[in-house]
Amino acid sequence: MKAAVIGGGVIGGGWAARFLLNGWDVDVFDPDPDAQRKIGEVLANARDALPMLYETALPAEGRLRFVATVADAVEGADYIQESVPERLALKHKVYAEIEAANRNTPLGSSTSGFKPSDLGAGFASADRLFVAHPFNPVYLLPLVELVPGAAAAGVVDQATELLRGVGFFPLRVRAEIDAHLADRFLEAVWREALWLLHDDVATTQEIDEAIRMGFGLRWAQMGLFETYRIAGGEGGMAHFVEQFGPALKWPWTKLMDVPDMTPDFAAKIGAQSDAQSGARSIRELERLRDRNLVAILRALKREGSGAGQVIADHEAALPALDAGTGPYITVRRVIPSDWTDYNGHMNESRYGQIWSDAADAILSHVGAGPDYVARGLSYFTVETNTRFLAETLAGEAVMCETEVTLGEGKKLALEHCMKRASDGAVLATCGQFLLHVSLETRASCAPEPAVEAAVRALVTV
Amino acid sequence: MKAAVIGGGVIGGGWAARFLLNGWDVDVFDPDPDAQRKIGEVLANARDALPMLYETALPAEGRLRFVATVADAVEGADYIQESVPERLALKHKVYAEIEAANRNTPLGSSTSGFKPSDLGAGFASADRLFVAHPFNPVYLLPLVELVPGAAAAGVVDQATELLRGVGFFPLRVRAEIDAHLADRFLEAVWREALWLLHDDVATTQEIDEAIRMGFGLRWAQMGLFETYRIAGGEGGMAHFVEQFGPALKWPWTKLMDVPDMTPDFAAKIGAQSDAQSGARSIRELERLRDRNLVAILRALKREGSGAGQVIADHEAALPALDAGTGPYITVRRVIPSDWTDYNGHMNESRYGQIWSDAADAILSHVGAGPDYVARGLSYFTVETNTRFLAETLAGEAVMCETEVTLGEGKKLALEHCMKRASDGAVLATCGQFLLHVSLETRASCAPEPAVEAAVRALVTV
Repeated sequence: MKAAVIGGGVIGGGWAARFLLNGWDVDVFDPDPDAQRKIGEVLANARDALPMLYETALPAEGRLRFVATVADAVEGADYIQESVPERLALKHKVYAEIEAANRNTPLGSSTSGFKPSDLGAGFASADRLFVAHPFNPVYLLPLVELVPGAAAAGVVDQATELLRGVGFFPLRVRAEIDAHLADRFLEAVWREALWLLHDDVATTQEIDEAIRMGFGLRWAQMGLFETYRIAGGEGGMAHFVEQFGPALKWPWTKLMDVPDMTPDFAAKIGAQSDAQSGARSIRELERLRDRNLVAILRALKREGSGAGQVIADHEAALPALDAGTGPYITVRRVIPSDWTDYNGHMNESRYGQIWSDAADAILSHVGAGPDYVARGLSYFTVETNTRFLAETLAGEAVMCETEVTLGEGKKLALEHCMKRASDGAVLATCGQFLLHVSLETRASCAPEPAVEAAVRALVTV
Repeated sequence: MKAAVIGGGVIGGGWAARFLLNGWDVDVFDPDPDAQRKIGEVLANARDALPMLYETALPAEGRLRFVATVADAVEGADYIQESVPERLALKHKVYAEIEAANRNTPLGSSTSGFKPSDLGAGFASADRLFVAHPFNPVYLLPLVELVPGAAAAGVVDQATELLRGVGFFPLRVRAEIDAHLADRFLEAVWREALWLLHDDVATTQEIDEAIRMGFGLRWAQMGLFETYRIAGGEGGMAHFVEQFGPALKWPWTKLMDVPDMTPDFAAKIGAQSDAQSGARSIRELERLRDRNLVAILRALKREGSGAGQVIADHEAALPALDAGTGPYITVRRVIPSDWTDYNGHMNESRYGQIWSDAADAILSHVGAGPDYVARGLSYFTVETNTRFLAETLAGEAVMCETEVTLGEGKKLALEHCMKRASDGAVLATCGQFLLHVSLETRASCAPEPAVEAAVRALVTV
């Protein structure tokens, strides 16, 4: 698959990174002589963060090319994404160049504010043009707002599938309005925040604390209405609306009015932000943001909730490991940053996660995977013996080879060998002994005959 | 320490739970005959979720009493929190009863909207009255907005310390305005959301997805300004303000205007919310919310960021384990829900976390804790042998006893025994062998003499 990315910068770079790390080839057109450096920086952040979201390896990275013309970029593309600056005349100029070279490929625009009917006015190929508005960092946040405008239903369906395939959560917006959905909320909060700064009710840091210590934590997992539904208690949403309706009449916001952005006011905001965050460079802040997002997304993935479920679904659609013949490759992954400890390397407990995942791969292979567990049967680990031979660092790609050394009745013994993917160095080994159990009685019992036969067939010693 | 909680319900119950689980006694006054049941439900949720935030045990739970009068509740209290319904006359009636019995104890109000000057008007003891506005669920979210009003500085400082001691992040608000800080943002977003529903641009579910798949994840860790500072790139906040200033003139929000809350409109919101979340009861939604919040807060704690750092600081202030004489109790904690797997019990890798934490307790005890690591010396685990003897479930309290069986030169051997706290049943054992290393060369070397001597003194075999 090939994506054409028209316009680099932070947003275009984020699009390029998401496609590349999901195995797509990407052609970038951007007349900015600095585009290659800018996209390189986004890509470095993405390579550091995105693979950490998954318990398995992403596909091999695609090929990145910087091309000299819009026509070169869109030729043979399966998807085109436009992320040029927010000036309608410029966007129209770019669409004319695209249309001259390609009239059929789905064409998404990253615009924050323009409606698709504004974008497509006057173009013969407007039926393949739609808004696909992402959120920074584009390579980590799942949301992309899809506003169809005049685009054909088939095109929008096709774009939805393609974008889901690279890990996005495409949200179809029913009607076109200025700023789509999410940015309307961001604009409302921004206006209110400007008043609080202007009136010296709070500083930038105090406003950030008011958000991230409270409702920001609620919104990362449930959003607005589901949270308030709970606040409404057994009466649900109707009760909440009744109870809090009167507040709409109270002077709790100053929103349509906007403070004048005088040079003095702009300088005050800049100075407060420097006092809050100036000790860290933008690169350091990006790294901090991405580490936090990885940690939150991984936490929600374990809970199977919200954006975490999007990651889990994407992971389930990634290509399965090639079993080959024993020893089997049972794990292939990147070490996430939340697996390290104060010694600067992977904590010993996380080696246990590798052994657990490796055993799961063998169990799936012999027919003792999720369906078998749902039938009330499983294997429990009763003993492990781990040798830690070399340090493992965050961001390193590793693999685990597993041999089945015993498979008789309810007994199963595995020998795992975890290696660094780059040079094959052995990082740790583990002998793991498991017993087959009934999940009802929680006591050991014989496996189903088909599973026992499949286990026996794997024994190599 | 004793807290008086005036007014039960979801908010008062949340205050009671936070105090109780941090070892305070709590007296509740609420004339509602259903108060005991309501607080019991909040407390059950809190007991399930709050202890999971910490890698160590919380203090023994305090004593909860329901009393017949306001005077009984406030007598001998170290802190009073009022959470009665949002009617100013009712609040004044309660304050008069409090003042008749107690004039000196810090008195916080949970009000969402009233200013402290409104609350204190006419009271002789207004100098100990302030707004302490928490966020639901009160037992998990760190934010509490402190608006001093006419309260004496000493009282507000005292309240800040008390509230920090039970895990809150007290945010001092510089000026009193309607709705303080955070609720102004919530009100702005609520108004915008009502318009989007009213105009059929989006449903309740689509709005929630627009939040939790995108900017909600950003706001859970950084808030508004630090996120935008990054968007401004190397130019920082000043560049961002310059770049996005013009959007303030665009029609991106409809905020001061409010749609009429007709019965039809209220029913439409209720129906959309039912379609989105109706398959789950409020209790199930609460449990889901709390599990997600625990997972997010624990993820941020590992990163040392935002609300997670508040948890870490609170944990560091909890009483240290009583070392006693060998075997040492090295871990005492509750098993968090994110440690379990598809078999419905604690995953084998998390036993490794217990051994790692137990070893850390021994290392701290012998003077090889964080300061020692900062000097470039540490111990690395080179082998573990774990026997899994019984299942461990989420929410169970466990402890680990550790014996030092070898401590010679760079060699250290530990025997860990993990037990269920309720009945002392042995859940797992581990023999762990560690080597002393230089963090500079990453090679083994002799420990500092004082550490070696302290290790030797612990050897029991």
